Amino acid sequence: MPLTDPDRLFPVEARSRDLARALYQGVAPLPIISPHGHCDPRWFAENARFPDPAQLFVVPDHYVFRMLVSQGVPMADLGVPRVDGGPVETDPRTIWRRFAAHFHLFRGTPSAMWLDHSFEHLFDIDTVLSADTADDIYDRIEARLAQDDYRPRALFDRFGIEALATTEGALDDLRWHAAIRDSGWSGRVITTYRPDAVVDPEFEGFAENVAALGALTGEETNSWAGYLAAHRNRRAVFKAHGATATDHGHPTAQTEDMPAAQAEALLHKALAGDCTAVEADAFRGQMLTEMARMSLDDGLVMQIHPGARRNHNADVLARHGRDKGFDVPGRTDYVGSLKPLLDAVGMEPALKIILFTLDETAYGRELAPMAGAYPALRLGPPWWFFDSYEGIKRFRTATTETCGFYNTAGFNDDTRAFCSIPARHDVARRSDCAYLAELVMTGRLREADAHEVAHDLSYRLAKNAYNL
Amino acid sequence: MPLTDPDRLFPVEARSRDLARALYQGVAPLPIISPHGHCDPRWFAENARFPDPAQLFVVPDHYVFRMLVSQGVPMADLGVPRVDGGPVETDPRTIWRRFAAHFHLFRGTPSAMWLDHSFEHLFDIDTVLSADTADDIYDRIEARLAQDDYRPRALFDRFGIEALATTEGALDDLRWHAAIRDSGWSGRVITTYRPDAVVDPEFEGFAENVAALGALTGEETNSWAGYLAAHRNRRAVFKAHGATATDHGHPTAQTEDMPAAQAEALLHKALAGDCTAVEADAFRGQMLTEMARMSLDDGLVMQIHPGARRNHNADVLARHGRDKGFDVPGRTDYVGSLKPLLDAVGMEPALKIILFTLDETAYGRELAPMAGAYPALRLGPPWWFFDSYEGIKRFRTATTETCGFYNTAGFNDDTRAFCSIPARHDVARRSDCAYLAELVMTGRLREADAHEVAHDLSYRLAKNAYNL
Amino acid sequence: MPLTDPDRLFPVEARSRDLARALYQGVAPLPIISPHGHCDPRWFAENARFPDPAQLFVVPDHYVFRMLVSQGVPMADLGVPRVDGGPVETDPRTIWRRFAAHFHLFRGTPSAMWLDHSFEHLFDIDTVLSADTADDIYDRIEARLAQDDYRPRALFDRFGIEALATTEGALDDLRWHAAIRDSGWSGRVITTYRPDAVVDPEFEGFAENVAALGALTGEETNSWAGYLAAHRNRRAVFKAHGATATDHGHPTAQTEDMPAAQAEALLHKALAGDCTAVEADAFRGQMLTEMARMSLDDGLVMQIHPGARRNHNADVLARHGRDKGFDVPGRTDYVGSLKPLLDAVGMEPALKIILFTLDETAYGRELAPMAGAYPALRLGPPWWFFDSYEGIKRFRTATTETCGFYNTAGFNDDTRAFCSIPARHDVARRSDCAYLAELVMTGRLREADAHEVAHDLSYRLAKNAYNL
Repeated sequence: MPLTDPDRLFPVEARSRDLARALYQGVAPLPIISPHGHCDPRWFAENARFPDPAQLFVVPDHYVFRMLVSQGVPMADLGVPRVDGGPVETDPRTIWRRFAAHFHLFRGTPSAMWLDHSFEHLFDIDTVLSADTADDIYDRIEARLAQDDYRPRALFDRFGIEALATTEGALDDLRWHAAIRDSGWSGRVITTYRPDAVVDPEFEGFAENVAALGALTGEETNSWAGYLAAHRNRRAVFKAHGATATDHGHPTAQTEDMPAAQAEALLHKALAGDCTAVEADAFRGQMLTEMARMSLDDGLVMQIHPGARRNHNADVLARHGRDKGFDVPGRTDYVGSLKPLLDAVGMEPALKIILFTLDETAYGRELAPMAGAYPALRLGPPWWFFDSYEGIKRFRTATTETCGFYNTAGFNDDTRAFCSIPARHDVARRSDCAYLAELVMTGRLREADAHEVAHDLSYRLAKNAYNL
Repeated sequence: MPLTDPDRLFPVEARSRDLARALYQGVAPLPIISPHGHCDPRWFAENARFPDPAQLFVVPDHYVFRMLVSQGVPMADLGVPRVDGGPVETDPRTIWRRFAAHFHLFRGTPSAMWLDHSFEHLFDIDTVLSADTADDIYDRIEARLAQDDYRPRALFDRFGIEALATTEGALDDLRWHAAIRDSGWSGRVITTYRPDAVVDPEFEGFAENVAALGALTGEETNSWAGYLAAHRNRRAVFKAHGATATDHGHPTAQTEDMPAAQAEALLHKALAGDCTAVEADAFRGQMLTEMARMSLDDGLVMQIHPGARRNHNADVLARHGRDKGFDVPGRTDYVGSLKPLLDAVGMEPALKIILFTLDETAYGRELAPMAGAYPALRLGPPWWFFDSYEGIKRFRTATTETCGFYNTAGFNDDTRAFCSIPARHDVARRSDCAYLAELVMTGRLREADAHEVAHDLSYRLAKNAYNL
Repeated sequence: MPLTDPDRLFPVEARSRDLARALYQGVAPLPIISPHGHCDPRWFAENARFPDPAQLFVVPDHYVFRMLVSQGVPMADLGVPRVDGGPVETDPRTIWRRFAAHFHLFRGTPSAMWLDHSFEHLFDIDTVLSADTADDIYDRIEARLAQDDYRPRALFDRFGIEALATTEGALDDLRWHAAIRDSGWSGRVITTYRPDAVVDPEFEGFAENVAALGALTGEETNSWAGYLAAHRNRRAVFKAHGATATDHGHPTAQTEDMPAAQAEALLHKALAGDCTAVEADAFRGQMLTEMARMSLDDGLVMQIHPGARRNHNADVLARHGRDKGFDVPGRTDYVGSLKPLLDAVGMEPALKIILFTLDETAYGRELAPMAGAYPALRLGPPWWFFDSYEGIKRFRTATTETCGFYNTAGFNDDTRAFCSIPARHDVARRSDCAYLAELVMTGRLREADAHEVAHDLSYRLAKNAYNL
């Protein structure tokens, strides 16, 4: 029996299922556009083999190890590095066995579907992962990883990726992107400008980061004008390394549009470490509006990813650092927060701002009404915890009736788990086709239009939204 | 092929579909009760022909033109008048062609279903609107509009409307309603008392409006007692023009129940233009409680429509004015906000307060628990962005289990698009029948009861809730 | 025709229905674990017959009488006692007839399903309750209540209850639990430690309650150390009466972790009646963290039930007191509120904290992300207004993808309506089996795993979560 059902995620009723399958068959062969994610560009620059199954599937993926942690498995036992360099499990087979023994925890989760998809379609595994099968599956994956056709560039081609965007900080030297470019390899791997460390007064080392930004660009970043010029400079460098977009991960969606003198005063406070929490949010908010204005000039698409309460647990942060599965969404306001930015540039048809949320209550109440009115706005796909069958269904049912399909931006996988990319796009395509089939069967969409919309959702909208 | 599927919105599974269809067939012929909306009473007073297809379907309907605006079409290109009287597109055929060329934007939206319903059932169109068919469809609609049986009163009869409520401000002279009454026409078109301009200290020209209210009623509106007496006076006049209800569109659901001296002091501040935002909200909140008390006296049903953040974009407001598709819902609290009013009059069985929301999170968390306890409360139907198949489904699934069907108030179309009225009621009836069929098929409702409930939801509950 | 459909709550599509039925047949015979509820232990201590049908089904059940109140039936007419001892209806048959005449109000609600289930399966009723059938059904129920096999202990056995937890305040003498223990009866009825009256500075008589706590335990409850020691003492007494859990019903989920000196100062303010609302919330929040620490010591499972705005209507509270159907949920934050507690003890794998919510927006946004990371957290089942088919469906679809099944705690009935216990567990088991069948049919869960998960959700998870 295959690990994954060929008709998975399609509606159960026979006629709906047939239609969903037909829609899916039309889009399954389309190339993958991956315009937002966190793959390591070094993989493609060096094209070294992936070290082992644990390093491929468990250690770097907080979607995976957090579930075991939630049931009492210490993070260190899964090989997650410690900030202080202290001892953690290093034997990949031991980590893999722990993972396998807890695989039942993933029942009903998208992680299970992504993992099974990779096991089956990439490594030809046909038995369910468990304590009993752990070693056998480990050996079979390991054997493949040793093959040249399982190196990063080969997988990139095998996955049918047309374009893959990674995300780098404003201070990154982009060496791996330069190396990819210089290597002559034809794969399109591009960067994205992510300036959080130099626009967030609460980021560790903000003042040092801004000083480094000045040094890197030769701009006087202690002045407001110089600070903005430094951003323009870096954006141009990123653009030269393929970037078509910027990305902004703020705790809230707050924006501001203050006079330059006030912004400069706030910059000085921020550099002096004197900002209150409210002022820090205002500074970040001002920078969103500034970035939107720069996007109008240089054409980079703007992505706003607000609402994560990062590093929720103090111990985990101290012991293992950031991005360890302890980020928790919080309520996020958009209607009030985005008004300053939208008053400034929201009616610009040439601007593209892609909004994401971790607060699903905003889909129907705030995001779809705004995206269905403002030319500058598009809705990003369901993000993070909501990148799933049910998450996609809730997104579509809550937004389509108000802003339609054409104010949305296609799919993002947003992953650092390279092997999960085809699985994630497959889930998104199937989920969208299931939704479209339901619309057709209930007389809300014509069948011919559904085929066209399926193509749009799977490919064209992402390509268009990100200028790819 | 018909533009609309005869089985649209029914469940797909065969037995459920058969049952939903049977339920629908029992309610499809019922007259339309339209107890809340924004049609222009002048249409029925003068019974002039509708000017052209663009003026009928595009220019006055922000549901429609906002979608084109969101994709970069300037509002002026669609004929939406400018505040300054500046030039906008005036050729109806040009506007219509622009609309037609963008009709794919509405895929999956209720607007598409309403429009297709009107095109097919009212104008006998059998081809999909697009750039290619624009002119032909324009001509066919235009030809019908020239016929006497497409004038407002004829359509009113054709639509099977038993009663239609419009909405007028407190200062309106109700001349068109008087004209309808005096015309001898048998159609029941009634007004609704909407006093926002004279109860909201933040409304443009509040003090002048209140002075006008005093002049109109002969009451001393600078005093609290006189101000309240003026409202009682206008309510009586509206009642004499058929009104059975009042309507209150506030930014929040805040209510107050303060001593008269405090209210009078606040009135004086409001008239002097000295209210803070908090005080303005308190004054509006006090007036909700006062209006509820007046309703206990004069029997007018009270409608509360809170939560829209009106005129979100400064440019659009300045250029094109209010009600141009740039109102965005925001989070709305009911549980704390309504307590003062409910402590005052919530247990009165003779009072009917109909609550609406643009914040769907309140359905299950606040509104259904309150409506399932307080005798004075009924829930209005899904409003505005949520007047749709999915919106109705979410409303029913989130409220029925807690407050049942009999604490809800039937359907409202709330529209200024006259031709969409039968389409909207049809969608509501189909969506409710689909929901009821699902309940029967899963053993949650007896089939005989479902037929009775379908009738209630389509007709009797609205008639009863609004004393029609 | 039976009152309840044997296939109720299963999916409609034939293959899904067959699978849901098969899953259900595997779990229907399992014993009932009822780890949280409000049955009266005196019933089982004395084993007296239940007085009459009205006292069994109407008078004590605010789920039931609130619905009639919402349609204008005075609470006193339904026999609900008045605080002042004033006259209320006392004739059970009159109360029953009023209830029967309004039974249509419950269409589509879980109350209707629970009542029909009890009528049919416990009292062999085969006609729908209505004004016409009221007397006959009354007589048939009354006849059964007179039989010895309808006394509490017999019903306990008939219902297949393996363990039933009641809830007692910290000052309760637990006499009925002692009497049950001393009676030699084999039924497992245990208590739960609910200290709200002695941890909430806003509770009526807080200072007197704390003084009584001191008197009961011999501890100096004016000091922080003595106050905590008194809690430890009572927890031990409750544990000796079978308790495996504590329960905390706070208006918010706020927690604190302040230094002892600051906590002691706050205790003094609270005892003096000088706390502000914010300070009262902080004191309650501190006590949640203290209780979590005590749970680490004594092994009692901790339940947090936040978010009810209790006694919403002032008149109802004054006339009829607490728990009369006028509690309304409000927005509840978890991500910020629980951080102090979770920073203190959230990573402890030996601790079990079960979180409940009345704000469903927190399921996917806050609760599942936290439960899917913190070892100490488990999610309680859908609570109160959401203990229903749709409520369970929303809970599963919003949480499973993020935290899986194994960070949830099985089902609670949380009821004071003893006869509804089997009906409620039946609804939960059916609803979960329907959900699992849907997962299998859409390729998201293997069929063999679904049988195991069904067993876990119906029995093992509750038993494990509550150490039963």
